[in-house]
Amino acid sequence: MSGRAAAGERTVGVIRTPWTEVREVPVQGAMAPDAEGVVEVARQYAPGLKDIEGFSHLILLYRFHRAGRAELVRRPFLDDDEHGLFAMRHPARPGGIGLTVVRLVAREGARLRVRGVDMLDGTPLLDIKPYVARWDAFPDARAGWLEQRPDGAKPGGRE
Amino acid sequence: MSGRAAAGERTVGVIRTPWTEVREVPVQGAMAPDAEGVVEVARQYAPGLKDIEGFSHLILLYRFHRAGRAELVRRPFLDDDEHGLFAMRHPARPGGIGLTVVRLVAREGARLRVRGVDMLDGTPLLDIKPYVARWDAFPDARAGWLEQRPDGAKPGGRE
Repeated sequence: MSGRAAAGERTVGVIRTPWTEVREVPVQGAMAPDAEGVVEVARQYAPGLKDIEGFSHLILLYRFHRAGRAELVRRPFLDDDEHGLFAMRHPARPGGIGLTVVRLVAREGARLRVRGVDMLDGTPLLDIKPYVARWDAFPDARAGWLEQRPDGAKPGGRE
Repeated sequence: MSGRAAAGERTVGVIRTPWTEVREVPVQGAMAPDAEGVVEVARQYAPGLKDIEGFSHLILLYRFHRAGRAELVRRPFLDDDEHGLFAMRHPARPGGIGLTVVRLVAREGARLRVRGVDMLDGTPLLDIKPYVARWDAFPDARAGWLEQRPDGAKPGGRE
C-alpha cells in the first residue's frame, strides 16, 4: 500500500515544502529545523483548526506517497548496518504513514506556516495533532542504534 | 472513515490492553504511565522488529476503530470549552489515526510488552516507529488550552 493512498482514505489537506525531489529531502525534520513549509488544510476541514495557534508544536501525520515497497529489514539512510523497519523511520513502510513534529510559526486562515518540514512538496496530509509535552516529550529516551549516529545524513541523502 | 478501517488498509498487528470498554480508557497514555499492554505484531511483519529493543520508547500508530463520527469543533474530554479537532487528541477524527508514545518494557519474539497504553483492547496497529528524542522530544512546547488543564480526566472519562 505504501507509495499510494489507501482506497477510500481520507486526506485533510496537503503539505507544501521546498522539496520536489526525494534526493533533496532532509532525513528528519529536526535536521533541518528552519526548513519552512505550509500546511494547507482543505476548506471543509478548516473549522477543526480553532485554537490551534495556542500550540507551539504540531504532529503532522501524512502519506508517504512516493515511497517504494516496504522491506522489513534494510539499511537505513543513517547507518551501514541493517535494522528492522520498526526500528527506523524509513518512508517505505507497510502502513505508509509518515510522522513529523513541526513548529507552528503562524496561522493564516486554513494555512499553517511551519518549520522543520522533511517531506516532499505535495505530500497528502492525514491528520494534525497538537503536540503536548507531558504526553509526547521524553527527552531522556534511549534511541538504540541511532544513539551512535550523528544528526547528519549520509552523503547523498535519501537516494 | 473513522470508526472502521479504510478499505484496503494494511494493519501490522493488534494492541492488547486492559480496557475493553471505551469508558475505561484513560484519556492519554501519560496519565496512566504504568498501564501495561502488549503489542502483538503479525507473524509476517516480525522481521521488522530487529534491533527495536535498543529503543526505550516507541510511537504507536493505530486505528481508532470504535470512535464515532468526527465533529470538527467540539468539547474535548479535558475541557468545558469547544476547540477545533486539530487542537485536541479526540479519537473521532477525519483520518481515524491514533498516536501514543509508550515505553518498551520487553520484547518477547513478535510481542512487545509496553507501558503507557491508552487504547482499547484489540485496537488495530498501523505502524511502530522508534522514538528518537532529538526528533520527537520538545519538552518546552506550549500546549494552548491544555496548559491550563490538570493531567487528570474529567469524571466519567471518555463517556
